[in-house]
Formats: sequence, structure tokens, C-alpha cells
Amino acid sequence: MADPRVLEHARIIVNYSCKVKRNDFVLIFATAEAHDLVVALASELGRAGAHYVVLDADDQTRRAYLLTSDEETLSALPPQQLNLFKDSDVLINLGAFSSSNNQEMSDVPPRTLQVVAGAMRPLSDAIMNKRWNITLHPTMALAQDAKMSYEAYCDFVYSAIIRDWPKFESEMRVLSDKMARTKSVHIVGRDTDITLSIDGRRPKVSSGDHNMPSGEVFVSPVETKVEGQVYFDLPIIELGHEIKGARLTFHNGLVVKSSAEQGEEYLKAMLQVDEGAKRLGELGIGMNKGINRFTRNILLDEKMADTIHMAVGRAYEETGGTNKSAIHIDMIKSMKENGVIYFDGEPIYKDGKFVWE
Amino acid sequence: MADPRVLEHARIIVNYSCKVKRNDFVLIFATAEAHDLVVALASELGRAGAHYVVLDADDQTRRAYLLTSDEETLSALPPQQLNLFKDSDVLINLGAFSSSNNQEMSDVPPRTLQVVAGAMRPLSDAIMNKRWNITLHPTMALAQDAKMSYEAYCDFVYSAIIRDWPKFESEMRVLSDKMARTKSVHIVGRDTDITLSIDGRRPKVSSGDHNMPSGEVFVSPVETKVEGQVYFDLPIIELGHEIKGARLTFHNGLVVKSSAEQGEEYLKAMLQVDEGAKRLGELGIGMNKGINRFTRNILLDEKMADTIHMAVGRAYEETGGTNKSAIHIDMIKSMKENGVIYFDGEPIYKDGKFVWE
Repeated sequence: MADPRVLEHARIIVNYSCKVKRNDFVLIFATAEAHDLVVALASELGRAGAHYVVLDADDQTRRAYLLTSDEETLSALPPQQLNLFKDSDVLINLGAFSSSNNQEMSDVPPRTLQVVAGAMRPLSDAIMNKRWNITLHPTMALAQDAKMSYEAYCDFVYSAIIRDWPKFESEMRVLSDKMARTKSVHIVGRDTDITLSIDGRRPKVSSGDHNMPSGEVFVSPVETKVEGQVYFDLPIIELGHEIKGARLTFHNGLVVKSSAEQGEEYLKAMLQVDEGAKRLGELGIGMNKGINRFTRNILLDEKMADTIHMAVGRAYEETGGTNKSAIHIDMIKSMKENGVIYFDGEPIYKDGKFVWE
Repeated sequence: MADPRVLEHARIIVNYSCKVKRNDFVLIFATAEAHDLVVALASELGRAGAHYVVLDADDQTRRAYLLTSDEETLSALPPQQLNLFKDSDVLINLGAFSSSNNQEMSDVPPRTLQVVAGAMRPLSDAIMNKRWNITLHPTMALAQDAKMSYEAYCDFVYSAIIRDWPKFESEMRVLSDKMARTKSVHIVGRDTDITLSIDGRRPKVSSGDHNMPSGEVFVSPVETKVEGQVYFDLPIIELGHEIKGARLTFHNGLVVKSSAEQGEEYLKAMLQVDEGAKRLGELGIGMNKGINRFTRNILLDEKMADTIHMAVGRAYEETGGTNKSAIHIDMIKSMKENGVIYFDGEPIYKDGKFVWE
């Protein structure tokens, strides 16, 4: 094992994030690029007395299939695949981010991705209440997107992953406790004035169970009570499609107007996937000061301190959310300059920091 | 797609070997080294309207797991994995041979491999009556074992795979028809004098349905009617363990004596896996003159003209075989020099050719 941090990462995923125990059946989604981490995970899973299979989540393979399949095939979810998800205890996804080229899906028609996303929705539903974790293994493609050398990128990723998670969790609990007593969140910033009801919802601290690295407080807003407009200045890459400068206007919780400076066609197609795609599934507040730079990777970017993000689509049931959708597309906004967050009318974040900091 | 032969290979596997049809659920076992073939298969499966998942069969990952797992874990087969096999329609195995290092399992204790082989036996049983194919994608490791450059090895493999299979099948049918009327096979050669009853059994022509490339006539001998001794001069590599110069003595179908010039410990451990491991599951006669050199790869070597092979372990039900086992280990013997095969006392192969040639 070349890099001991890979083994440490695997230990954190297996023991801390997913709490794998004897006889658990673990589904691992991986790519060839994440090979070293897969080997380390297998070693840890053996130690835990668990069983596993590794499913190849390679984008190039997927693309080849999507381009030759007809709509009848694309819109069917094979029961064998659904059963595999339903019957697993734990899912570890290294495949979502660790591809060799995050642009592989860029020439798959949005309509095709939309049909597939709809067909695959029962898979998301099936894992919602299981132990699952999305993480990443540093790849050349990720380093390239981050505009960093591979060595520097590895240092960046592992310093975000290998840390004292229980201590960080207690720091984030200050915000989540305050949020739990809040009915209405009002966010103001550049081209942004939006009010979201979180009345009765249960905000959660994300400290590594579902995402690694993590570091955010998130909640699913009341689906019908989002009003106003928001401008997401930071770009995101979703299935090879870059969405940049997205603007959404909400009325009664529904997206009534949408545009983007880049990737508008894709964004609009995704908003049409199903009824839930047009409503918010998440409001998140980034808290991780360790993630000290924007790397064009949603898993890390949305955890950055001084950012907020909202996702259209699937809500988190654990926070009281009820929105169902095949999609969950996060979009990020920097709050550093002139951004203010109000909880029930009282500012809790302004001038680049929380009021208790 | 760099090499058009990869796509042609995929077409042969999907359409000719496995006869994949709309809505089939296809399980693909693959390694990173077989990536190009996986992409081509995905493309063909999409065209056929089938669904698939790719399971990573990487040896390094498997080894890491085996080395940290305790015996309780190793001896359990998770029902989720068995169900996945049972519920699939087609299995395509590119993983068995296309690894980056066929010696990865060489330092896993034979006892561990023995326990795992026993635990995994229901998987073999589950696929026996399905459409399945074992093939290979040319890798550097395979070229190295064959003592060939990669380019020359690719030419060798594809000339063995891309051919007129129906025509070759009719050529092999001459031998299988004769064999179907035969009760007793007597094989004589260097350190070899063995008699096998095939009375009532149904010899099969292997022309690409289960192995690609293929080219052999095979049958499962009567389990209790094998007498004499046999010397397998050609080496085989099984899970990283090389067995060379194996000698087996049979009485009433049972191996009563075994030795090997190399890999004896591994051979003896495998013979202990279960009761069926000590009996013959197969007698095969290689017919493929296109495979014109020995490349230390059982999938190809056993199809070579002028060789025979026998396997201890699992029999082929389709030929009337009843032997059950978790293992199926083929061993090969060259017949070119002084080898004679008798069918019911009549020589049908001698002096390096079949009597009708």
C-alpha cells in the first residue's frame, strides 16, 4: 500500500461512517481510478466480518450503453438491480466522483439522462433509510478540475477526510440547535432574496455518515413554502454537464422561472424529470473551514465555509422532508461578500461569519 | 474505439455465444484490464435491449479481503450474492483471466482458497443451466505468460476468436458423433494408461457458447468408472498457483494417489475441497488448430489440437455428468508424441492425428 492515508480513509468509511458489522452485505460502487481505495476497503471489510460486491460505475461504459439503448430499455429498471439495492445493508459509493474523465456524459442527450434518472428513482428510495456513504478517491481528473497538482490535491483531500469528526460535529451542533428552533430562513445576497419555511423540520449535522468529507448543516425546507429568487454563482458539474450562474425563482415552493449562464438546457431538462424536481429538497450551510478552496466538486464545495447550497429534487426524510424525485441537484452560492442569513428575522450570519464566532 | 476487433469480439459474445435478447439481465465479471471489452459489451447490450451490471473481479481486491477475513466469514455465502446469480439470465466472465497479475493469489494460503471455493459452490450450481460464457481480453499479463509481445498476443487471441464458428462446429461434430457411440475411452501416452467409461453420456462440441475462444469435444465420464494413471505434462495456473507435472491415479473413479512436480500442496488441498473434488468432471479433446502455441492459459491451452485434458470436480450436467463440486480444475496433456486414444478398443487418434484426417 503506497499511501497509508488510503488505508486510514478506508477505516473511517467502514468503521466510523458506515458502522459496518459482521454479516453486513456491502455494495461498493467504484471505478478503476478508485482501485487503491477499493483494495483498502476490502481489507477493512474482511476485518469486520462483512461481505461485499464491487459494482463498476465506469462512466465510459455507462455512456456506451446509454447511446445504443432505445427508450423502452432506458425507462425500465430491472428487478434484479432493485433487489440488489433492497437486500444490501450498506452502500459505499466511490464511483460518483472518481472517474477518469468527468465529461464522459457530456455528449449524452439530456433527454436520455432524464429518462434514466426517472427509471432509477426506486434505487434512491431503496437506499434512503440504509447506511450509505458517498466519498471520493483522489484522481487526476479531480485534480485537474481543482486546478491542482495530483500531490497537492491528495494532501487537500486527505486533510479534509482524516480529522477528528466527533469534535467537528459538536462545533456544528451550535448552528443546527439554533436552526431547530427556527421557522423561517431568509437569505439575502447578490441577486438573491429568498425565504424558506423550515417550520417543524429537523435540521441535521452532516459529520461523515453520508458524505466523506463532510461538514454542513442541512434541512429539507417545507416543500410548498419557498418564495423569492436565488442566484447560484458557483458552477457545479452534474453527470458531465456544467451548470453555472443558475437563477431560480420560487412561488409556493415551485420553480416558476429558471435560467443559467451555462448549462441552461440541461438544468431545464432536469427540472422536468418529475413533479418533485421543481421543488427544493435541501437547504445546506457549509461549515468546513478545512475545505479552503473551491475545487469544482460538489461533494467538497458544498461543505465549504461561507457558502450555502440548495438542491432541487429528492428531500431527506430524516429531516422531515417529503419531496420525492429521481434527481437531487445541488447548487452553490458564496455568501462571503454581502451575504446575510436570517433565522426568524434575526441575522445569524453576516460579514463573512456567524454572529457567535 | 482503438481496435475494431474488440467490438467484433463483443458482438460474438453477445449475439453468438450468449444469444442475449431484450430484457435479459446480464451479469458481467470484469477487471480494469478488460475495460475496452466492457465498454464494447455495454454498447452491444444496449443494442440488444438488455440490462446489465458489471461486477469487479479484481484479484488484488479479492486477495486483500481473503487475507483479513476469518474462517466464519470465508465459509459463508451471502444470500444477496446467490440471489443475484440466480436471478440473472446471462453471465459473461471476463474477470477470470484478464487480471493485471495472475499471481495475485499466489500468497493466499491454499486452505483459505479451499474454504472459499466450498462456500461459493452454490454460485456455480446456480449458473450451470443458464447462458454463460468465459472469455478473455488480451492483457499484458497474459502476453507475458505467453512469452509474446502484446501486439503479437492480440493478433493470436483475435485470430482464435474471430472466425466462422458454425463451420468449425461441423468439423468437430465428426469426433463427437463417434464419441456418442462409444462406451469406453482408453488413453495411452507418456506415464499414462487410463480407461474412462463414458457409457450413456452425451459428448458435446464446444464451439463458443460457454468458452470463447473454444474448440473441443468434451464429456463427463462415469464418476465411478475411471481406472489407471495419467500424467499431465503441461502446466496450468489456477488462482495464481501453478500446477506442473501432475500425476493422478484413479480406482473406481476416485483419485487414490496424487503428486505434482510443482504446486503439489495446492493440488492436494483442492482435491480435499469436497467429495466431488476427487472424481473426474470432464474429459476433453482439444481440436483447435488455430491455437497453434501453448500460452500457459487454460482457456486457450485446453482447446489446442493434439492435447487432451481432464478436470477434477464439477461435471457438466448437459453431458449427463452428475459429479458435484465447488472446484473444476483442468489439467492438460500433450498427445503429439506417442499418444494414442482408443474408442472401445479401436484407435481413433495416433501419430499426431485423427484416423480420418
